[in-house]
Amino acid sequence: MDRDPVLMRLDACYQAMPPVAAMRMSIAAYDGACLRLHAPLACHVNDKGCAFGGSLSSLMTLASWGLVTLRLESVGLSADVFVADTEVCFRAPLFADIEAEARLAEDASWDTFIAEVRERGRARTYLTACVMLPDGGAAATCKARYVAIAKRYDAG
Amino acid sequence: MDRDPVLMRLDACYQAMPPVAAMRMSIAAYDGACLRLHAPLACHVNDKGCAFGGSLSSLMTLASWGLVTLRLESVGLSADVFVADTEVCFRAPLFADIEAEARLAEDASWDTFIAEVRERGRARTYLTACVMLPDGGAAATCKARYVAIAKRYDAG
Repeated sequence: MDRDPVLMRLDACYQAMPPVAAMRMSIAAYDGACLRLHAPLACHVNDKGCAFGGSLSSLMTLASWGLVTLRLESVGLSADVFVADTEVCFRAPLFADIEAEARLAEDASWDTFIAEVRERGRARTYLTACVMLPDGGAAATCKARYVAIAKRYDAG
Repeated sequence: MDRDPVLMRLDACYQAMPPVAAMRMSIAAYDGACLRLHAPLACHVNDKGCAFGGSLSSLMTLASWGLVTLRLESVGLSADVFVADTEVCFRAPLFADIEAEARLAEDASWDTFIAEVRERGRARTYLTACVMLPDGGAAATCKARYVAIAKRYDAG
């Protein structure tokens, strides 16, 4: 995926964060609606030999954060993006590499979010994310609220 | 804190997990009711120069998991402890080292939890955790459900 300059820039941003560099994660896929990240199980095993819950949460957060960042950049907006709150359900232990994907929540709209960042300099939106099991079920699911604050916003 | 053999054993368990070893965390305090962990900001900074939300979640999860493990061990129970679900609120950016502490939720009871692990071989309970700001407020708060499954349970 890294040949796309937009994704190369996002990956450089990820890898510049020490806790993310330690995760050995990479961008697996992006189609405009869904961003998928990958990380090897070996870096994320817990005492039970499966993936650490905190790692699943982190990868879902990074996928969601990255998707919001990409959507803002795609319309020329530069903003700081923060996670505001998250609800995570751990549904089954994962004994395979982590594949985390994020998309906009069903009841949210990119158009509304982007218009609000443009008009007010800040906005919130909701994303859902999940970590897949190899058989197609979910190891973990997440719903979270993200806030974007434009870096160059002139209220005048 | 590491001179206490119980905490040395917990720390060895933490450090044996690759994602935890990468966090450079240590046990800061334990008094039977509250377990506090510490991690240096330098290992956890994000693109905004403050602590990555996923790191705050992970440290709160590790503090809660460790507290449940210590309480089970203190009564001679050996169990696998899993995080089942979490709700995290990120309240303020943290530009200092991470101090995460966990305790039992107000409406939960260690006695009930331990009795149930003994009687049924498994039980759930609720913990609260927070990451402190240097001024004493909260950078993040968490409520989460944990499940313990006894390793040697003879239902007969």
